[in-house]
Amino acid sequence: MKAEQLDTPSLLIDLDRMERNLKEMQALADSAGVKLRPHTKTHKMAEVAQLQLEYGARGITVAKLGEAEAMAGAGITDIFIATEIVGEQKMVRLRSLAEKAKVRLAVDSIYHVEQLDRFFGDQVPVEVMIEVDTGMHRCGVEPEEAVELAGEIVSRFPQVKLAGIFAHEGHTYNASEKEEMKQIALDTQKQAVETGKQIEAKWGISCEISIGCTLGQLAGEFLPGITEVRPGTYVFYDVGHAYYLGDINRCAATILSTVTSKKGEEKVVADAGAKSMTIDQRSSGVLKTEGFGKIKSHPDLMIKKLSDEHAIIYPGGSLNLGDRIEIYPNHVCPTVNLYNKAYGIRDGRVEKILTITARGCNQ
Amino acid sequence: MKAEQLDTPSLLIDLDRMERNLKEMQALADSAGVKLRPHTKTHKMAEVAQLQLEYGARGITVAKLGEAEAMAGAGITDIFIATEIVGEQKMVRLRSLAEKAKVRLAVDSIYHVEQLDRFFGDQVPVEVMIEVDTGMHRCGVEPEEAVELAGEIVSRFPQVKLAGIFAHEGHTYNASEKEEMKQIALDTQKQAVETGKQIEAKWGISCEISIGCTLGQLAGEFLPGITEVRPGTYVFYDVGHAYYLGDINRCAATILSTVTSKKGEEKVVADAGAKSMTIDQRSSGVLKTEGFGKIKSHPDLMIKKLSDEHAIIYPGGSLNLGDRIEIYPNHVCPTVNLYNKAYGIRDGRVEKILTITARGCNQ
Repeated sequence: MKAEQLDTPSLLIDLDRMERNLKEMQALADSAGVKLRPHTKTHKMAEVAQLQLEYGARGITVAKLGEAEAMAGAGITDIFIATEIVGEQKMVRLRSLAEKAKVRLAVDSIYHVEQLDRFFGDQVPVEVMIEVDTGMHRCGVEPEEAVELAGEIVSRFPQVKLAGIFAHEGHTYNASEKEEMKQIALDTQKQAVETGKQIEAKWGISCEISIGCTLGQLAGEFLPGITEVRPGTYVFYDVGHAYYLGDINRCAATILSTVTSKKGEEKVVADAGAKSMTIDQRSSGVLKTEGFGKIKSHPDLMIKKLSDEHAIIYPGGSLNLGDRIEIYPNHVCPTVNLYNKAYGIRDGRVEKILTITARGCNQ
Repeated sequence: MKAEQLDTPSLLIDLDRMERNLKEMQALADSAGVKLRPHTKTHKMAEVAQLQLEYGARGITVAKLGEAEAMAGAGITDIFIATEIVGEQKMVRLRSLAEKAKVRLAVDSIYHVEQLDRFFGDQVPVEVMIEVDTGMHRCGVEPEEAVELAGEIVSRFPQVKLAGIFAHEGHTYNASEKEEMKQIALDTQKQAVETGKQIEAKWGISCEISIGCTLGQLAGEFLPGITEVRPGTYVFYDVGHAYYLGDINRCAATILSTVTSKKGEEKVVADAGAKSMTIDQRSSGVLKTEGFGKIKSHPDLMIKKLSDEHAIIYPGGSLNLGDRIEIYPNHVCPTVNLYNKAYGIRDGRVEKILTITARGCNQ
């Protein structure tokens, strides 16, 4: 079946581009001697996670316990849940998950460790990773607090295995240009390495020192001491990342859409809106983009407005009613999460259907 | 089961509030003598659509053929698809749909009618409604073009039943205050009525004159000649609409979320982000809101940042790790579309599970 025979809107994955993206990031990690533990929040597809492992990844990262359950259900056995989780339901589910996979869990307070102790007692079935806030100011503790927290875990909860520390250099996205971005990425690495080394020296444990963020990894440099990286978006990239890389053809995900309304030369309307690619605009920072996605092979056109089910495209002269277009999304992660399946395309033909295994697994 | 025992994030529907919203809009339509054909894009739940019909609605509106299929599959038999659809796959599906339900379809070009003629010949199984652009400038033709298009349909395609015209006063959302909003709403009605009357006079057909938009309907006035209204968001409302109504307690949908990270008095982080309630901000117009949703019973707190899986809430003093909060979303329509199910709550207890029948049916 040809891709153009698919109904619209559909999520298409260019398999050649995706495989190149995966191989290049694996090669980067390998050449730096760091483990790659890709964040699967972007694709949420067990089949793609398996491919990442096949290419050399050491386990995967997920954002949610629900994503971990979906991936473990598909046979993946080494999973880092990179957010703090709280609540008794979560602990019950964690127990079942830990029977299927080796699990690491984020903590940024002794509260999270007390919760494990309270629920599991001497049989805590997961390892913990302390989240360090290196400047993104979302979750995590300051570096010096991380050292103290490590000490409290080691002394009060000897049955809890502290596997290491992790940071997310997501504030690289706030940088206004490449050099600033690189400095932020390296500053995160420096703080992470120093924190990990202090914990090792002070508490006598061996520390995983994990950082992760596609943009940060595009800086291409890893400080000695970094042991693990967790980029996610690189599997498909999106408009902002492609501009950063100087090549829109690095984008592996598009939304196939049909022109359904036309007003002369002025504009056309296509059948993919915010419910097919999100309204996220990346309106500032180094990946700043204009409009709501870019149209493949039509760099002159702009999606100026987006409502829930319509993309409004200016000017309209070069497109006609019934034309098929492919739209590169601005932010691919929430876009993929809108679909139950994607079509894997090679040489213009549908090679396979990719199930979005963890779609909507937000618990 | 108590609502607070649910895992998080979960989508909760306050059934008392929802039923009040439904009854009040039905009463408004009844008192004005217009048919209510609610847009089900907001809730996408067959069970709620059935309730709307039970309360007096005359059929439903959907945005997509896929939504129509989902609703027809659940037994709903009178459906208006309020967007233009294009493509042979769509025509094949339309044929099957029309065997289950009476279907009306949007057109804004003779192209759409030619498509029906080409595919169905003399046996066109659906009626068409001409979309009139009264100022929103998305789809639709100008009023005078609508009259011409009606003539072309009547003369060239006598086998196609032209049921009437419709407009969407979505540009009411651009108004900066209530009086301006009301003028826009009434201006749409005026244009719609005049267009419909001209078509009736010129081509001798009886015309449905349909308008629809929750905000426009909140103006509370219908000009003589309007025969049908299609509001959607009123089923749940959301933060902007509630402010417009002067009462946040009109919001019937919330996201139940857990505080998972805390930084002293400064801030807390909850486990519901853009993948649980969208990043849509309604950043301008009469429903303008600050932040990314409002927290029930905590009007002093602000969700200042939202990433895919985190809500970052300032200040953090009044919330603690493990606390449950309910968040009213800024834009409820794309929020509901992220979930496969919602929990119907009454008096703090889970009364039922509501399947989001048409979730993700964007084709």
